[in-house]
Amino acid sequence: MSFAELMSKSKSRIILALDLTGPSLLDRALKILDEVYPYVSAVKVNRHLSVPLNIEELSKLVHAIHDRGLLAIMDCKINDVGSTNKVMAELFFHAGFDALTASPFTGWKEGLEPVFNLAKDNSRGILVLVYMSHEGASENYERLVLDRSSISYKRMYEIFAEKALLWRADGAIVGATRPRILAEVKRLLKGKIPIYSPGIIVQGGSIEVSLKAGADYLIVGRAIVEAPNPSQVAANLNRLVEETLARLRGG
Amino acid sequence: MSFAELMSKSKSRIILALDLTGPSLLDRALKILDEVYPYVSAVKVNRHLSVPLNIEELSKLVHAIHDRGLLAIMDCKINDVGSTNKVMAELFFHAGFDALTASPFTGWKEGLEPVFNLAKDNSRGILVLVYMSHEGASENYERLVLDRSSISYKRMYEIFAEKALLWRADGAIVGATRPRILAEVKRLLKGKIPIYSPGIIVQGGSIEVSLKAGADYLIVGRAIVEAPNPSQVAANLNRLVEETLARLRGG
Repeated sequence: MSFAELMSKSKSRIILALDLTGPSLLDRALKILDEVYPYVSAVKVNRHLSVPLNIEELSKLVHAIHDRGLLAIMDCKINDVGSTNKVMAELFFHAGFDALTASPFTGWKEGLEPVFNLAKDNSRGILVLVYMSHEGASENYERLVLDRSSISYKRMYEIFAEKALLWRADGAIVGATRPRILAEVKRLLKGKIPIYSPGIIVQGGSIEVSLKAGADYLIVGRAIVEAPNPSQVAANLNRLVEETLARLRGG
Repeated sequence: MSFAELMSKSKSRIILALDLTGPSLLDRALKILDEVYPYVSAVKVNRHLSVPLNIEELSKLVHAIHDRGLLAIMDCKINDVGSTNKVMAELFFHAGFDALTASPFTGWKEGLEPVFNLAKDNSRGILVLVYMSHEGASENYERLVLDRSSISYKRMYEIFAEKALLWRADGAIVGATRPRILAEVKRLLKGKIPIYSPGIIVQGGSIEVSLKAGADYLIVGRAIVEAPNPSQVAANLNRLVEETLARLRGG
């Protein structure tokens, strides 16, 4: 089963981002996982953990994620030359990650092509950054650029959405902080690629607005992991997602 | 002293890229370092080592690099949201790295701004990716884009060179595989920011052509680390650099 199919079968639309800092990272990550796993579909790990921990520790975390019936996403935002990208992707896939994130700005040849090939060979997923969630993302993701193939001007994120389709990405990442663009990317993807939306709550994105705009999965980090009661917060968010989806289906 | 000043005082223009794979990575990295250090100015570490090793092991490597009188560059190509970028940069600076690489596509606000501020506060360097060395880099680094400030069309790498100046980056990275663009970026930077050039030899870049086009430092990885005699290769490359520079100064 493909990564996208596995995700679509999960009972929650929330992805837990383990954005932790400080000491005893692996132990604390495992503790939060144990508290939150009933309310999420997958766990996203990024440089908060991959820089301080070694690959064996990350693999231990991935096994714990899988043991609880969840999928594991490495948010490494791949953007290097192909030979390095391939080494990095091999290490993460070998550690058990089900999907990796990649920056389409890198380009295809000797860039992301080896990573997409590796993912296909190993039945793993690649999620492409179409528009990030921070304020400065507008500087370049929204930039007006010449599209050589159609000889027309487009926004960079439109080109990235088209690349996600062309490359058959398993997901497109669009920040929840810009619902108008989220809705536009949703149209561009024609229902063929699910949208993963970070930037919920702490960065300002709203669950209701993001779901209405077309987000398929909501990535939540600090609002859960920095809460005094992560389990309760995750349960509440999950309920809010389900109620919102029911309302959207109803209306 | 700033990172750029420290680099300018080093006796070699070659930067060793420790692009290793396989077992015993730290031991093998230390061994190559011991063989090659007399012929290089700095050592660049990227995801080949930062993914499998933990931050304590990277710190051990940085200490060994410093003990041999060299500078240590972490080629992490920063491209995340500011909060994650800051955590990553803090970890790498705390481990002792003298400079980090960053992707200007990320944008400034809540993107690279916190990283540049952190580097300034800690007297460390930030090297900005102006044009990468792989084939697919042309897809976006060379893309014709609208520059809002001048209301004119430019290539993306021209915008990135301007950002390197605006942000007072400590270096600009331009692939050795495109000497024409290297020369153009050299002009745009007006001698204010040194150019670091990867893609030498194995990826097709030439030492003579790159130096002539304006590269200040040459990043060499596989040609040295995959050689049966890394020390001999590094010594030969260093001699070739010095001869070429003498010829360029003479002519």
